[in-house]
Amino acid sequence: MTRPIAILGLPQDNNSSFLQGPALAPARIREAFHSASANMFTETGHDLGADGAWRDAGDLLLDGLSGQVAYDAIYAGVSDTLESGDPLISLGGDHSVAFPAIMAHADRYEDLSILQVDAHADLYDDFDGNPFSHASPFARLMETERIRKLVQVGIRTLTAHQREQVERFNIDVHEMSDLSRINDIHLDGPMYLSLDLDGLDPAFAPGVGHHEPGGLSTRMVIDLIHGFGGQLIGGDIVELNPHRDLHGMTAMVAGKLLKEMMGRIIKDMRG
Amino acid sequence: MTRPIAILGLPQDNNSSFLQGPALAPARIREAFHSASANMFTETGHDLGADGAWRDAGDLLLDGLSGQVAYDAIYAGVSDTLESGDPLISLGGDHSVAFPAIMAHADRYEDLSILQVDAHADLYDDFDGNPFSHASPFARLMETERIRKLVQVGIRTLTAHQREQVERFNIDVHEMSDLSRINDIHLDGPMYLSLDLDGLDPAFAPGVGHHEPGGLSTRMVIDLIHGFGGQLIGGDIVELNPHRDLHGMTAMVAGKLLKEMMGRIIKDMRG
Amino acid sequence: MTRPIAILGLPQDNNSSFLQGPALAPARIREAFHSASANMFTETGHDLGADGAWRDAGDLLLDGLSGQVAYDAIYAGVSDTLESGDPLISLGGDHSVAFPAIMAHADRYEDLSILQVDAHADLYDDFDGNPFSHASPFARLMETERIRKLVQVGIRTLTAHQREQVERFNIDVHEMSDLSRINDIHLDGPMYLSLDLDGLDPAFAPGVGHHEPGGLSTRMVIDLIHGFGGQLIGGDIVELNPHRDLHGMTAMVAGKLLKEMMGRIIKDMRG
Amino acid sequence: MTRPIAILGLPQDNNSSFLQGPALAPARIREAFHSASANMFTETGHDLGADGAWRDAGDLLLDGLSGQVAYDAIYAGVSDTLESGDPLISLGGDHSVAFPAIMAHADRYEDLSILQVDAHADLYDDFDGNPFSHASPFARLMETERIRKLVQVGIRTLTAHQREQVERFNIDVHEMSDLSRINDIHLDGPMYLSLDLDGLDPAFAPGVGHHEPGGLSTRMVIDLIHGFGGQLIGGDIVELNPHRDLHGMTAMVAGKLLKEMMGRIIKDMRG
Amino acid sequence: MTRPIAILGLPQDNNSSFLQGPALAPARIREAFHSASANMFTETGHDLGADGAWRDAGDLLLDGLSGQVAYDAIYAGVSDTLESGDPLISLGGDHSVAFPAIMAHADRYEDLSILQVDAHADLYDDFDGNPFSHASPFARLMETERIRKLVQVGIRTLTAHQREQVERFNIDVHEMSDLSRINDIHLDGPMYLSLDLDGLDPAFAPGVGHHEPGGLSTRMVIDLIHGFGGQLIGGDIVELNPHRDLHGMTAMVAGKLLKEMMGRIIKDMRG
Amino acid sequence: MTRPIAILGLPQDNNSSFLQGPALAPARIREAFHSASANMFTETGHDLGADGAWRDAGDLLLDGLSGQVAYDAIYAGVSDTLESGDPLISLGGDHSVAFPAIMAHADRYEDLSILQVDAHADLYDDFDGNPFSHASPFARLMETERIRKLVQVGIRTLTAHQREQVERFNIDVHEMSDLSRINDIHLDGPMYLSLDLDGLDPAFAPGVGHHEPGGLSTRMVIDLIHGFGGQLIGGDIVELNPHRDLHGMTAMVAGKLLKEMMGRIIKDMRG
Repeated sequence: MTRPIAILGLPQDNNSSFLQGPALAPARIREAFHSASANMFTETGHDLGADGAWRDAGDLLLDGLSGQVAYDAIYAGVSDTLESGDPLISLGGDHSVAFPAIMAHADRYEDLSILQVDAHADLYDDFDGNPFSHASPFARLMETERIRKLVQVGIRTLTAHQREQVERFNIDVHEMSDLSRINDIHLDGPMYLSLDLDGLDPAFAPGVGHHEPGGLSTRMVIDLIHGFGGQLIGGDIVELNPHRDLHGMTAMVAGKLLKEMMGRIIKDMRG
Repeated sequence: MTRPIAILGLPQDNNSSFLQGPALAPARIREAFHSASANMFTETGHDLGADGAWRDAGDLLLDGLSGQVAYDAIYAGVSDTLESGDPLISLGGDHSVAFPAIMAHADRYEDLSILQVDAHADLYDDFDGNPFSHASPFARLMETERIRKLVQVGIRTLTAHQREQVERFNIDVHEMSDLSRINDIHLDGPMYLSLDLDGLDPAFAPGVGHHEPGGLSTRMVIDLIHGFGGQLIGGDIVELNPHRDLHGMTAMVAGKLLKEMMGRIIKDMRG
Repeated sequence: MTRPIAILGLPQDNNSSFLQGPALAPARIREAFHSASANMFTETGHDLGADGAWRDAGDLLLDGLSGQVAYDAIYAGVSDTLESGDPLISLGGDHSVAFPAIMAHADRYEDLSILQVDAHADLYDDFDGNPFSHASPFARLMETERIRKLVQVGIRTLTAHQREQVERFNIDVHEMSDLSRINDIHLDGPMYLSLDLDGLDPAFAPGVGHHEPGGLSTRMVIDLIHGFGGQLIGGDIVELNPHRDLHGMTAMVAGKLLKEMMGRIIKDMRG
Repeated sequence: MTRPIAILGLPQDNNSSFLQGPALAPARIREAFHSASANMFTETGHDLGADGAWRDAGDLLLDGLSGQVAYDAIYAGVSDTLESGDPLISLGGDHSVAFPAIMAHADRYEDLSILQVDAHADLYDDFDGNPFSHASPFARLMETERIRKLVQVGIRTLTAHQREQVERFNIDVHEMSDLSRINDIHLDGPMYLSLDLDGLDPAFAPGVGHHEPGGLSTRMVIDLIHGFGGQLIGGDIVELNPHRDLHGMTAMVAGKLLKEMMGRIIKDMRG
Repeated sequence: MTRPIAILGLPQDNNSSFLQGPALAPARIREAFHSASANMFTETGHDLGADGAWRDAGDLLLDGLSGQVAYDAIYAGVSDTLESGDPLISLGGDHSVAFPAIMAHADRYEDLSILQVDAHADLYDDFDGNPFSHASPFARLMETERIRKLVQVGIRTLTAHQREQVERFNIDVHEMSDLSRINDIHLDGPMYLSLDLDGLDPAFAPGVGHHEPGGLSTRMVIDLIHGFGGQLIGGDIVELNPHRDLHGMTAMVAGKLLKEMMGRIIKDMRG
Repeated sequence: MTRPIAILGLPQDNNSSFLQGPALAPARIREAFHSASANMFTETGHDLGADGAWRDAGDLLLDGLSGQVAYDAIYAGVSDTLESGDPLISLGGDHSVAFPAIMAHADRYEDLSILQVDAHADLYDDFDGNPFSHASPFARLMETERIRKLVQVGIRTLTAHQREQVERFNIDVHEMSDLSRINDIHLDGPMYLSLDLDGLDPAFAPGVGHHEPGGLSTRMVIDLIHGFGGQLIGGDIVELNPHRDLHGMTAMVAGKLLKEMMGRIIKDMRG
């Protein structure tokens, strides 16, 4: 038997270095998820409209929180939700929310691996003096030495500093300039998917703060969700910026990817 | 010798389940077709600016019609135009117009096959109680048992019910999640192409009512138009929604695909 | 040792046949190039933020100039900048600026070859009676017999007249309908890259005057920049139209491609 | 002592004759109401951030309902909320929701008068054969003979038929072509304000289905809210169409007008 | 008895100094005029849906024409249409079309006066060396000494040169900085209304090439149409630029003003 | 004789509480100021295209600066520019730049009065703990006791706290809800105009971070610029947010208001 997947909003964006907005995203992704313009089946054939497929765990109240206080609130909120035993997908917020969300998962799953879809490695040791910056969560995460493996896909902006960090943390980076090994992402064990929407090309996901042309198509991300090894146990979708999202096109992409992540989790739960 | 291709507008959208607008599309597609920002050659090298290449058959007057009355009007209008012996491409309107348009063709071409480019299978036995819904035309069509073969490309939203309909009607579905067989669409005999613009990814065709991310690129559709077997004898382009089409980008896609369909028809006519 | 790459704005658009606007582009591309939403590393790992990597040569004053006078002003301005020995990338302006810019390069580099990324061949012998039209620069250029080889990529609009011109000038055209030979562009010697943003599909570069669906993705262009043979010694980026560029998405594409062109030039300079 | 104002969403738009979308509006108006880009004070100086100023009564579940069934559901839902004794402002939905919402108020307030801000009189005896059309609610309402007085402001589209209805129901119409008497709207007794956002000029409220240029400014509507006589006891804000609302500008107008309506209700409650 | 008002499209914009586009306008204004989102009554109560109220005279074929040739074609086309005795409203096109259109009227109406609504006086003796520039039509017109009186409303950009032209031609200019005399426009005899949409503030009419903030509201223009003295015998609506007109908002303004001009003409015809 | 007016960019927005972007504004306002779509005459008849009318003092380098350091840099930069004796208009940046800019003016002009056009009083004693917040500059300013009089126009968001600050600092506030005294702003002596674009209604200036409906029209602001007493000696235009400014409409408003401010300064200099 499977458990319902909990959906939890993490409306925080005060760690954004360039453009605020992602705090407004959870409501928009939910709207797209429920949109009458699409149905509730995943491409794997699972019916998310069936009773018990998922539950809405609401939004955490993060208004005005920042730094360690915000970290603690998100860590506590995600941990509380995971207490139920239900798998969880968080809706950001900017990418800084992934650090506490993943740490809460790492407490429940030994040997957790991470698949990160992103334009940016988010590995800055320090960005504008803010250790909780949305440019740094995966540096913070890897410093904990709690993560078995970090795999990054879609990267197209590595600085010299970030290349050093990649070496330091032994990260498996699949840059857009060379995707030849992307079908060889053979992982096993529990896997968490952290999906920054700017990993997609701005043509597919214009509603993000950082336009970095030359990225993944929506189809490539869907194929990735269903294609890698291991067991998907949870994840996040972050960095939707409604201020840039004319006609809600990117929210629909987020809603679609949410459905496909749910389909993969259900498939993996059922073994 | 070839005959001119007739272009006929079918401005109807009251069978749209989510967002009206396609009734405004024929005028916008014509504007894009004639736009001074492009020339009149197809990629196959045919000059649509040459005398006799095509003729504008105007728009049917469908204002205020719905249900069986609208069906009859479209069936009659398309049949009348086909009387001339000219091949015909219809400009919708929502996808509900395809059912009567195809039936009029089926009366003239024995053993007609259909290639449908679409995000959705449009096979609902019943949608909101409306048998003429734009979600159902291909169920209605296959029930007539007049169609030799239906091939669907670009599909990414099959419900359990629609999977049953696929089985029931023996449809050849090429879902976006598996396009490996798409170059093997070996058809022969007369072929009608029903092109729902939401078969394209919303990045390429944002001006549609139903954003279903993960679709075809414009190039994939052009290659498909020129690539399948059989003889293209007519078709339709449907579901352009000008309300969503900032700067007329999707109208230009429709205009381009119209030109390429015309190029294919001319090539096939000339044998 | 390498020399700084000069960036020179050529704000002219009175040779545009359809929609003015590209004269506003240099300022927008610079803004995107400097945007705090991205960093200054190329995908080849070069740091454009390093001292001496580039210099801004400002904009030429072209306001109100047209025809031969504008040609002369651009030719003189580009030649003056090349005097320094620095490689140069020009920012258009419409594509008519490429003719004088390339001629100034041809005076310095014997046996210069040209790689043109474009939806259109721009080979009209005559367009609306204007020999300097943005539809004609490569006809003018090839008539000089100063160019070793012209390679065109992304073309999808050849008229019968242009196919004749292709024959006449022995141009190597890679149409979008057949990119099978694109990885075989084996060139040697000095190479100039003329990049018309409408070579990209409008999904990736909506901010251009001529929407010609079915084009290249941003990733394909980046791969092309780093993939062909020969030594890249300069180039131009043209036809950005800010009037069509909602949220500056296409300016960011231009800024990205500018960075990658610079990375390729630096790599080639260093041997 | 004052009671909290209840805010109730009525997400229904299947009575829209032209363009669906208003069913998505309640979420957007709430988002704007709570936006961190504004504060919670009304122009009358009331602090809506104070405890007990208002409460969110959620949305009625109207998905898939239409005709008499939808009417009954809205009437029941509004009546239930009014049971608490709290004043209520409904968020549509299209204007058809106003008929049942006002009827529920008419059951509690004898001699209720209505102030309608609107581009259209909404008095069609019959529109496309749908008695519940969003073009007809005030015809239905006046037929009940339960309303003391209907005052319409902002009207600029009267047909001959509607002018007859104005006579028949003795409506006080203030057309945009003559606002000379607008400061003389001297009412007394309980007053309900039905605010169709298309009463504003499309420059101020572009996010509506029916653009009818020549309307009220936002300031004129705010002044009207605070200026008429009588006691404001409730109201509705309808016809926001998020599909047309780039950057959420009209949602912010709706949020502002909601705040000012609340300020007026609080002032009138306190006497 | 009244005659039907002829509506004639003049799709020319190659005299635009800044941004092409108005050649696409006639189709958009017709679409707005017929839009199902509004009805066919004017604010004066005339029903434009009645038989014989108007007729569509189509578009003149002006593609590729310029200078004197274009002038002659427009003059001839307008004159031909006026032969019928029907009053005529032309749909531009840029403002250069007004010169030949008005001259054709001046041949039929002695002592014709002109009311021009515009941000710009359009009185340049010479602009970029083009005597037919859209910046000069009213200089050309006044030089003919065929016009009894020219009244300009909405002007907010007079140069020193244009102030001299105002003196020279004895024009009655109502600048936006002083509208105190606008209700005193007491004219008599036949009157032609030339309506440049940039006379409105860009908030009300964003879809024009020249944004000149500080202009008229739509309501002020409607009031002007119905308020001045004399008999309205024809006119034009020019400078709509669909490239700038998101969601067709300005086309709806043009459609509304067209209806009101028609209402005024009908009223004046009936005496 | 008059001195040229210096125009200085202050690209800072890290004190924005809601949405970054104004740091990009100086370049956009300059582009609009120079746009070929308008001329260089003010409504007062001054020709800004004349030699010596103005000079561009460039942008201060404020990248990465915040708090006291940013204050000091702006204060020093403005003071340095004023050393020349030229009057100065600053282009923000967010409204936090006005505090140091005004202080630099207060050092040169005794008895300086301030006219602030704004939706918000910007008088927070403390906002999110940031004394330099863009919500607080006028509290900081009035605490210095260096300002003779502060007059605020366009205000529509006073909180109880801000009403206390108004009392404390004896500010003359003209709220939008009562503009009856706006023509009575009789000031004398040197006057500085601080123009926050959100003082305008979002219909006229959508490109700002805080949409506060119910504001001034562009015309009202122009009339205000030319209408108050005293001598205008300098000012600022702040809070343009290009991320929200589709088609650069608000930049054109800023460019227009810049021209009119310059016209007023020139008129006052000439006495």
